[in-house]
Formats: sequence, C-alpha cells, structure tokens
Amino acid sequence: MHYVTELIAVGTELLLGNIANTDAQMLSEGLSALGIDVYYHTVVGDNPQRLKEALEIARKRANIIITTGGLGPTYDDLTKQTICAEFGKELEFHEDIWQEIQDYFLKRMKGKAITENNKQQAMLPVGCTVFDNPVGTAPGCGFEVDGVHVLMLPGPPYECRYMFEHKAVPYLQDLTHEKIFSHEIRIFGMGESQVEAILHDVMVESTNPTLAPYAKTGECMLRATAKAHTRQEAEAMLQPMIEKVKGILGNVIYGVDVSSLEEAVLDLLKEQGKTLSAAESCTGGLIAKRITDLPGSSAVFKGGVVSYTNEVKERVLGVPHGLLEEYGAVSEPVAKAMAEGCRRLCGSDIAVSVTGVAGPDSDERGNPVGLAFIGLATEKGTVCKQVDLTRGRSRGMRRHIAGHHAFDMVRHALLGMEI
Amino acid sequence: MHYVTELIAVGTELLLGNIANTDAQMLSEGLSALGIDVYYHTVVGDNPQRLKEALEIARKRANIIITTGGLGPTYDDLTKQTICAEFGKELEFHEDIWQEIQDYFLKRMKGKAITENNKQQAMLPVGCTVFDNPVGTAPGCGFEVDGVHVLMLPGPPYECRYMFEHKAVPYLQDLTHEKIFSHEIRIFGMGESQVEAILHDVMVESTNPTLAPYAKTGECMLRATAKAHTRQEAEAMLQPMIEKVKGILGNVIYGVDVSSLEEAVLDLLKEQGKTLSAAESCTGGLIAKRITDLPGSSAVFKGGVVSYTNEVKERVLGVPHGLLEEYGAVSEPVAKAMAEGCRRLCGSDIAVSVTGVAGPDSDERGNPVGLAFIGLATEKGTVCKQVDLTRGRSRGMRRHIAGHHAFDMVRHALLGMEI
Repeated sequence: MHYVTELIAVGTELLLGNIANTDAQMLSEGLSALGIDVYYHTVVGDNPQRLKEALEIARKRANIIITTGGLGPTYDDLTKQTICAEFGKELEFHEDIWQEIQDYFLKRMKGKAITENNKQQAMLPVGCTVFDNPVGTAPGCGFEVDGVHVLMLPGPPYECRYMFEHKAVPYLQDLTHEKIFSHEIRIFGMGESQVEAILHDVMVESTNPTLAPYAKTGECMLRATAKAHTRQEAEAMLQPMIEKVKGILGNVIYGVDVSSLEEAVLDLLKEQGKTLSAAESCTGGLIAKRITDLPGSSAVFKGGVVSYTNEVKERVLGVPHGLLEEYGAVSEPVAKAMAEGCRRLCGSDIAVSVTGVAGPDSDERGNPVGLAFIGLATEKGTVCKQVDLTRGRSRGMRRHIAGHHAFDMVRHALLGMEI
Repeated sequence: MHYVTELIAVGTELLLGNIANTDAQMLSEGLSALGIDVYYHTVVGDNPQRLKEALEIARKRANIIITTGGLGPTYDDLTKQTICAEFGKELEFHEDIWQEIQDYFLKRMKGKAITENNKQQAMLPVGCTVFDNPVGTAPGCGFEVDGVHVLMLPGPPYECRYMFEHKAVPYLQDLTHEKIFSHEIRIFGMGESQVEAILHDVMVESTNPTLAPYAKTGECMLRATAKAHTRQEAEAMLQPMIEKVKGILGNVIYGVDVSSLEEAVLDLLKEQGKTLSAAESCTGGLIAKRITDLPGSSAVFKGGVVSYTNEVKERVLGVPHGLLEEYGAVSEPVAKAMAEGCRRLCGSDIAVSVTGVAGPDSDERGNPVGLAFIGLATEKGTVCKQVDLTRGRSRGMRRHIAGHHAFDMVRHALLGMEI
C-alpha cells in the first residue's frame, strides 16, 4: 500500500500571516523520517464551507489526511464537526476525556474558569482512536473511512509536536506495518551540492538503507534510513553506512542524531569536563544565546561578554588600546586578545571570540561586509581563523554563519583536530 | 470586484519539512495590509502533474494566484512551463532580462559559471508584466487569463519579499484600483483577548478605517486600515483613530509602525542620545542578540555580560558573594547588583539585568520555573520588577518573554514612566 499524505491546517491566523505554518514543517519532517510521502499542504481559514471543500479534494488525492488546528473551544470545534459531516461520522461524548480536561484546568490554567464550551472538546467521532492530550485541553483522534485515514491534531506547535510524536506516529506505524529506522548525519563546512557530488555513487547504489541529503540553514545533513523488522536488524545496516560516510567526509561531520552544532559542542564539553565562554562583537550575544537555548548548558557554559563597542573590548575584555588603534576591531590580533581576555575574565577552559562585519555596511576601516575573525584561547595558546560570511544574504544569516564557525572551531579544539 | 487569493508554493523541500513556508506568511501579511483576502495556501512538490492539478483547482476558487518557487535553473523552470501550459501561454525569450542575469552573475556570483540553463530564466510568458529581479537571477512576472491573475515570484525568502514589495504590490494596486493605507499599533503587557474586549465598541463601529487585533509571539498588535484616494485623506482618518486607541490603552502601546519592542527601545535611545548595556543570566545573551539584530545598534548598545554562572556574576559583574549566598541568584538584590555592575563595567547610561528560572527544572533553591527578576540601573538609581514567565510554554518562549519584559522596562525608564 502506498500512502500519500495531505496536511490541512485550519486557521485564519495563517491566512493573515500572523504565524507561519511550522506545524506543517514539523509533520513533514516526521513523516519523511517514517518513510511516508507528503504530496500536499493546504491551509484554509476558520470557515466550515471552505474546509469541507478542501476535505473533498484531499480525500480524492490522498489516503492519509492530517489536520492541525481548529480543535479549541473558541471556534466551536469547527474542524471536528466539519470532518465528521464530510466523512459521515457522529460525535460522541467521552466522560474520561472530560475528566482529563477538567483535571488539566485545575492543575495548569490557574484562575481560568472552565466553560461549557470546553465540554465540546470531549466530543469525538464514534469509533475513533482517541489521542488524549496531556499537554493541553484539545484531544485529537484518528479514524478510517473508505480507505482514507483522517488524523486530527491540535494547532499550537508545542501540543502538535507532542501529539504527533506520542499519538500519531504509533497510529501510522500500525498502519504501514513498516518499521523505519533512521539516523541523521549532521555536516558543517561542506555544501549540499558538494556532499551530493562526493557521495553520488553511494547514494545511487543504496536502496536499503537509503542515504539522502537535506539542506539546512548554513549547513546540511544526510539521513540514512533503513526498513527492517527490528531495531537491531536496522542498525546492522545503518552503522556500516554511517561509518562509510564518516570515512569519506571526515571532519565535516559534527554529529549523528544531534539537534545542532551547539549541542554537539555542549556534549563534548560535558564529556571532557571542560568549560566555555564567549566574547562576541558582531554576533552580539548570539553564540551565548544559542548554547543557553539548550537545557543543561549551565554546567559547562560560564558566560561571556558582548563587546559591541571598542570601549567594552578595552574596559571589560582588556584588549590593548594599541591593537584596536593599529589593526582595527575586525582583525586577527583583536580576535585573539578578545578570546584571551574572555578566558581570563570568565575563568573558562576555552574561550571563543568573534569579530566581523555583519553589515549592512562595511566598517569604518573599509573592511567588507562578511569578513570575520574567530579567535580561540585554550591552555595551549591562542589561534585565529579568518572566515567569509558572504554566503549569508542578510545580516541575520551572516551572524548565524559566524556562530556556526565559532562552534565548529570549539569542536575542533575539543577533538584535538587542526583548526 | 472581490479578489480572492490562493498562494501556491512549489518545492519538494517544503514537503520534506526542510524549511517552513515563510513566504506564505510574508505574502499573507502583505496582502492583508493591502486589503486583499487570502483564502488558501497550497504547497506541492517539484512535480509538474501535481502542480497542474493544483492550478486547475486554484483557478476555480480564486482570481489571484501567486506562486513562489520553481523559477530557478535547476528544476528546468517547472513552475513557469507548467503555468503556461495550464493557462495556454507561450514562453518568449527576453534579451534584456538575459543581459541582466549575465550582469548579476558577473557582479555577485564570483567564480560561478553561468550555464545554458540560466538562459531558461530569461524565458517569460508572452504579454506578461515582467518582474525583473535585481536581487537574484530568477525574474518573476504577472499576467491575466479569463479574469484570473497569475503572479510568479522566486522562492528564496529574501528575493520573494523584495519582489513582492517592489513588483507584485504595484501590480496588485493597479488591479484593485483601491488604495489601502494602514498603521500597526504594537502592544506589550496586555493580551489579545483583553485588547479586543476593551476596544470592542470601537472595532464594531469602525468600517473605514477599520481596526483589527492580531496575536504575536508574546505580544499583540492592532492594524488600523483606511481606504482612501490619497495618503493625506487616509491619514486624516487614521491619525484620530490611533489617538483614540492610545487614549484608551495608554502605556501598553510601545510604538506605531515599529518592527519590534527592541526597535522602539533603539529609537528612543538614539533620540535621547543614551546608551544601554545588559547583564543576562537566564536569557543568556538573547537581549543583546535581539538589539544587535538591528542595524545601527552599535551607536547606542555598548555591550553586555552573559553571567550564566554565579562565578561570572561575582568576578565580572562584581555581585557581592554574600548576596548570592543569602538570596540566591534568582532574587531582587542580585538582579539589582547585576544591573549596577553592568552599568559601571560597560559605562552605559542604562543597564538592564535578567535573572530567572527558564526551566525545564526549578532552580537549586526551589524557585519555580517562570520566576524572573528584571533589574534596571540608571543615574537615578536602581529598580527591580518581579515577572511571571509561565505564559511561555517552552524554555525558548519563557526566555523570549523575559526579553520582552526587559526591553519594556528600559522603554518605561526612557519615557520617565513608572515601572
């Protein structure tokens, strides 16, 4: 059976552009990892007639329909009622779900009164698989009519992700009878097209497991996917594939199944019991922000200094005035002095520094937009690397890529690799 | 004429979940500001047959179709060719566009060779309005067949935004013969539902200009929109409306037509010639990152310290050891000492500090997730405010809201308002 999925998001806020349809991205990525094809995304507003028409179209061209949104009490359960009308299903009241909703209100929604509308949320299609929702009030569900499976998930991204991973994935795996296991090989320092060119033969030759490249912001990744009866059987196929890829690509692989470069760095710091600090000029706090986005970072990240002005570089980091005068802020000597000053000040094992021109304009010395220096100070001494951020089309992207380079340099240092 | 828009994004990378459809969000927001209704978003992969079917559906239910993506040389101009086949249009070669593409390559794509494929990008539908693209190689276009307008824009977000604002908007304004003028009133410190309740009568009474609320991450906004013949005529309607809203909502309005709270703060700092620095614990660099996201911030933002550990709070910011011992890091005395230390260290007029529990776990003293203190030091002295971040469902959201509170406190100080 070939399953084709259509995602239907319901929400006027999407059509007004208040929010992006990130649920569709998350679900698409998850379905792709399960080996299920997504052919269409559709967005309609909180309008029963247009949702009905979208469902009519979807059931003709897909056999899995996953809806997001419209399950809350405020829109009178538009999604559930419209879907039930379209698929000839009745709604029935679930006492146990109603109990859970009441419990959730008591525990989490301090001060908010439960309303009669919330009771609507305990109404679900007859004979469905209930997806109870421990992270919100709107339960979801899944059912099948005439070979088409319909799954309803709540719209808020946090709830949608939880319900997909914990409720929809088991439902879909029961459906496909297929067990898919995959690993993500994360790469920084080599573009998708180059990765594709180098691994072309491996990718073409491999059918199980398969190997496919994906572009990410400022980096790329490979997903190795195996179909197998057990995890063990899958790993017996996947591990040799991963080793082979590691052998070919080498150091540009920063991790397997890690969420980001900063997570790879955080894991290495923890493993080695080392601490990090950061002195940031053009990234302006982004490196600190990225590593502290990760829970548990306080064990290894001591902190840092955002030295956005020369004054702070001198006063706080102790960069000699003469260096700033002679070479300017965007220079190798200053990057090195920033890293050394930060390491001393924060008392960390490693300190990384970034100074560069994020744009939109070149700096007062005429250094071009995109020029940056990354400094790195450890007990062994201080090094510096000049990097080019011009691949980034915006100030934000250039700062992001500068952060990538900084984390990658820390990773290299931790692994004792050449920088 | 009532125009109904459908956005069709073409790109397998969207269906694989590699990227979110942010173009649809940007276009929806822009069209909403123009007073043009968007009823549908559709995403299909790089597949001519499925794109053709999507176009067949779209032309029945919408009279403006805007496509994004599929105009590059790599996918053999799938979008253009498929659209032309569906709408019975021939493609013709544009020598001047070809010249522009060659010029763009020479200037911007250093080292990249122009290929025969790029020549395909100079092929456009006969009789179309050409949208030449100064920020990329793929031109777009607009044409009309049987009362349906089709506009094609490139997929990369930066190009898509530029082409929409500079090419598609004038095309659409010619179409609707309607001039729409709007202002955005940005609000922090009052939820969308409360704003809606307070302004209910004003919103119901107003038809031109209209007033509509929108939820944003951690904040909300109102859009006032007028239909008029001239900007002057529109402003004569809009300004009294804005004044009225300001009179009702007061201080929670942080700006009109500003992009963010940090931009409002940046503008105030520039106006008053004041400088800012930030001492961040739980926000871990986010405040610095947010203000330095804005070009021109170096004139007023001196920098800051990410004091993620008590050691850095003591060593760098000079927070007395006794305070940390007695009250713990998440406390009013420590927040105040952080702000004072940061102001002294960075030599700024104002320093803001944040210390709190971002989660996922409560801190070692048992302070609950979501508790935070914002300190603010100026020449007049130091104040502190306790804030509640529990509205944020994730660590990331709680940090974001903490940043909002910090910027809002700086804004209050700059305006001489009570904190």
